[in-house]
Amino acid sequence: MGKMDYANSTRILSGNSCLQDFQEIKDYGKKCLIVTGRHSAKVSGALDDVIMLLEKSQIAYEIFDKIGTNPLLNTCFEGGKRARAFGAEFIVGIGGGSPLDAAKAIAVFGANKDMKKMEILSGFQNVLPILAVPTTVGTGSEVTQYAILTVPELETKKSVAHPALFPKIAFLDVRYIKSLPDHQLALTAADAFSHAVEGYLSAKASIVSDALAEAALIRCADGMRKLACHQKSPELLEQLLYGSTLGGMVIARTGTCFAHGMGYSLTYYYGVPHGEANAYFLAEFVKQMKPAIPQKVEKLLLMCNMENIEEMDKLLHLILPMKQKINEKECRDYTGKVFETHNVENGARILKKQEIYDIYCKLLLAK
Amino acid sequence: MGKMDYANSTRILSGNSCLQDFQEIKDYGKKCLIVTGRHSAKVSGALDDVIMLLEKSQIAYEIFDKIGTNPLLNTCFEGGKRARAFGAEFIVGIGGGSPLDAAKAIAVFGANKDMKKMEILSGFQNVLPILAVPTTVGTGSEVTQYAILTVPELETKKSVAHPALFPKIAFLDVRYIKSLPDHQLALTAADAFSHAVEGYLSAKASIVSDALAEAALIRCADGMRKLACHQKSPELLEQLLYGSTLGGMVIARTGTCFAHGMGYSLTYYYGVPHGEANAYFLAEFVKQMKPAIPQKVEKLLLMCNMENIEEMDKLLHLILPMKQKINEKECRDYTGKVFETHNVENGARILKKQEIYDIYCKLLLAK
Repeated sequence: MGKMDYANSTRILSGNSCLQDFQEIKDYGKKCLIVTGRHSAKVSGALDDVIMLLEKSQIAYEIFDKIGTNPLLNTCFEGGKRARAFGAEFIVGIGGGSPLDAAKAIAVFGANKDMKKMEILSGFQNVLPILAVPTTVGTGSEVTQYAILTVPELETKKSVAHPALFPKIAFLDVRYIKSLPDHQLALTAADAFSHAVEGYLSAKASIVSDALAEAALIRCADGMRKLACHQKSPELLEQLLYGSTLGGMVIARTGTCFAHGMGYSLTYYYGVPHGEANAYFLAEFVKQMKPAIPQKVEKLLLMCNMENIEEMDKLLHLILPMKQKINEKECRDYTGKVFETHNVENGARILKKQEIYDIYCKLLLAK
Repeated sequence: MGKMDYANSTRILSGNSCLQDFQEIKDYGKKCLIVTGRHSAKVSGALDDVIMLLEKSQIAYEIFDKIGTNPLLNTCFEGGKRARAFGAEFIVGIGGGSPLDAAKAIAVFGANKDMKKMEILSGFQNVLPILAVPTTVGTGSEVTQYAILTVPELETKKSVAHPALFPKIAFLDVRYIKSLPDHQLALTAADAFSHAVEGYLSAKASIVSDALAEAALIRCADGMRKLACHQKSPELLEQLLYGSTLGGMVIARTGTCFAHGMGYSLTYYYGVPHGEANAYFLAEFVKQMKPAIPQKVEKLLLMCNMENIEEMDKLLHLILPMKQKINEKECRDYTGKVFETHNVENGARILKKQEIYDIYCKLLLAK
């Protein structure tokens, strides 16, 4: 019988005003630290709505808005200190993957006063409750137990995973996505799509994660096509936001595979945005899984309404620049980095080091 | 934007030996009350496996095996006393819907020593942790927050719902289904199917519940066709078990609709098995929802691989006897009972009293 280990403790609320109407926020405490980036929480209107809700609910708050793209462990450690100094009882994270992931790490440091910075990578017990308000359509962080943090000491990103990192509530309101620039929309949609694709073809896929992945694939693939044709509409935003959350629910169980693993170094060393970094490798990932699970790859293409794998690659290239090149030494070094994560072994077929190196060379080596 | 309120805190483990290998059971306490019926837990082998796991984990246990079909509130109250007398720290429920629902009610009474019998219907805070081992393919109770209890004082079944009633773990092992007699298999498959159908066409359906419902519909409809052709196999059992759990995840959010509501009285007054009681009204339910959501009904039939709604009715009649008749007074009385629940208003279209009465007459009135 098929093995499954499915769980997701996040409650998902969606709809206009789902955040503003959330009276139960009082149950989370009297003091809240809001964690955001410098920009999107403000322009999206989400920060204003959170503040209004907190004030109406007589909850004191402070704002920690220092989260940049690819959040640094260091910044999160600082945020944790701030949470403790303020006596925050819960955290509201607003933004894309970076602020939401940072909110989780801050929730850990905020609940463990003697914890040293690097200790978050090796385990913990206590976490402040987290409420998550996404303002992009890619991360899925609002429904996962992961926080991806950049650790300069290790020259890479590290994934912290813990059941207590599932946000208590994810608030999906499409109005908070409206101000997202088109390029960000494409980047985050590609990220959501890669979650659905990698999760669907993961060795850890189960009937529940597949049901969610299929619903995500339909929405993300169709949504990316609309982006390619510049057909932006409120319906498109809703479709992508749902696709993103569904994709998050998938990877919460399956993890991501080598498209993510291979992309991390592009982001770390060249600042290639995360959604684009995965996109370089996604069609190749599908191709590489096909010998192990040909029928599932067929089903995936059917869900995406695509004739073949090449169509997927073309669509990703249509909506994203994907111009990065690297040299042979980087192909070698990045290959080593990929095997420091578990992404490769998550796939339905496990590639060897030489195969990963060959893919780097084929797709990215400057001629 | 579409409204959603999705949450399900149950962790689902599946696969051969998922129960026997569950070492984390130690985290739930030192004393366990096992709640079962008189029969299926034993013949399925599930009870033996639970006992072996508890003994290996040095957890003391007692067995409360008094749960009959359509569990009485009274029996659950007695079970709660037993749990408290023993000092049980958690409950393992084994069986079909009746023992699993009873396990939940016993977990409530077991955690609240001064609670009076009827008070469970009006609210509570504390619940002992529940682990659930299904031995049928219909209830979905292993992944819901509901306990359906028979209350002779009120001449009906009552649904108790509370987030703390979600089992902590649902263990899906197809070996525990193998000993289920064919008629029980058909009855419970029809129940699971009705969960998927009613949830899919519920006003509370969301993109997440729909993704799960579609996965359930595919499995249950195909599984019932195999049952009709007497094609029993381990794969069929697995397909139905998953369909049942997926259906449970659906109704955990959407609730059930009038097919369930109309069936309750047949069960209460004539002992018609629950899965069959819904089946009388299911195709009619789909027909009645069609004017409100025609496209979704089309999609439902597509998922079921059915040409039209009549095909659904025929299939249900093929696998279940469905011979019950009632008189005109009963049609009237049962109509009143239906409106004591919220089932009717859960549908995508809300039927009037006269319409429900007409359906009773059309389908069940003795000529």
